[in-house]
Amino acid sequence: MSAEPRLVEVRKNVLKQNDVVARALRERFRAAGVYVISMVSGPGTGKTMLLEKTLTMLQPQFRVAALVGDLATDNDAMRLARSKAPVRQISTGTICHLEAAMVEKALEAWNLNELDFLFIENVGNLVCPSSYDLGEELRLVLLSVTEGEDKPLKYPTIFNSADVAVVTKMDLAAAVEFDQELTDRNIQAVRPGIQMFHVSSKTGAGIPEFLEYLSGRLSGSHTAAIERT
Amino acid sequence: MSAEPRLVEVRKNVLKQNDVVARALRERFRAAGVYVISMVSGPGTGKTMLLEKTLTMLQPQFRVAALVGDLATDNDAMRLARSKAPVRQISTGTICHLEAAMVEKALEAWNLNELDFLFIENVGNLVCPSSYDLGEELRLVLLSVTEGEDKPLKYPTIFNSADVAVVTKMDLAAAVEFDQELTDRNIQAVRPGIQMFHVSSKTGAGIPEFLEYLSGRLSGSHTAAIERT
Repeated sequence: MSAEPRLVEVRKNVLKQNDVVARALRERFRAAGVYVISMVSGPGTGKTMLLEKTLTMLQPQFRVAALVGDLATDNDAMRLARSKAPVRQISTGTICHLEAAMVEKALEAWNLNELDFLFIENVGNLVCPSSYDLGEELRLVLLSVTEGEDKPLKYPTIFNSADVAVVTKMDLAAAVEFDQELTDRNIQAVRPGIQMFHVSSKTGAGIPEFLEYLSGRLSGSHTAAIERT
Repeated sequence: MSAEPRLVEVRKNVLKQNDVVARALRERFRAAGVYVISMVSGPGTGKTMLLEKTLTMLQPQFRVAALVGDLATDNDAMRLARSKAPVRQISTGTICHLEAAMVEKALEAWNLNELDFLFIENVGNLVCPSSYDLGEELRLVLLSVTEGEDKPLKYPTIFNSADVAVVTKMDLAAAVEFDQELTDRNIQAVRPGIQMFHVSSKTGAGIPEFLEYLSGRLSGSHTAAIERT
């Protein structure tokens, strides 16, 4: 995997105002030694449930926090508060994606040096968040087994801008006659070589491998930060 | 129910370019006696499967056709072609919703007088399509049981701009411990009095009631058109 998040590669030729803010954020995150992971998916794919599980399970070892974007409610922040991790809601109103400036504002009162991982859950949408860099180091795109195997082909931009694909709700795979081979092939067709996980937040299947991967990224990031200085 | 689609009520104070095109389309549809129904939902809610079933089952009695919007593929049009109804794909590129002008262009070669029902399947997105009037008479918002009971509260604008809510994938209700009462309450909280259906395109449950409702709308529309002339 390259040193830059996929989205930075994708957007390097179309730098706009949001990218400028995002780049500054990324520098700030790296300087503070916090590894930032964003999550994108359609509505109801299970971002919040996976995030709650992740925050809870990483906490014994790491200092974690989360920002969650939503149009209208703070339901997700309430759910995530059960993990006891610091969580802040970003209400986007009618805007269908987070922007770097919203992330910057939400972080105003936080001391980033006190964090190992910061998660950013985007608004549930497979289109709008695609091209908005939030300064994250790693972008996860989620797809649930109930959504249909064709979604990577139908929403290629968001899969192409992600670093990792997570197939969720694997406990429902049999009930929906989920074709894992076809799905994996479609994901790889849109974004060749992308790292993939298959998980169930309900049963816990695949979660240890997923968390081990994230933990590994943190040490990689620290090393990279040291190498750059 | 009022004579105007819900979206026209919602948008009457913010008339923009798209609304102007949509109003002209609506007049054209009414003059031709074709009843136009649009479908909105998140990705993977089952719009295409319900539409394929609807086209197939309405065809013995009615002349039906469909337009389907998608970012990148013509998969949906290929699937719908199995119904033998005329179907045309609208590719939106990176745009997360259909616009009235796209519908107008896609219809150029069609004789609307030869149709009873025209269905318009929007891009899978619970945010962007909300405020784009397509000239439809009836807007269906779909929500699958796998997406979570909270979605109407989290995406209120799209539920508020719809005329009918259809809860899909009812065959999976038990597997996901779906709370129908809570979902219905959340839908009604956002859009009080909205007509609701609960269906499974897989088992056929609820489909006859849904189709009967649509058939009834057609005669209502014809009457209304006659009253207006």
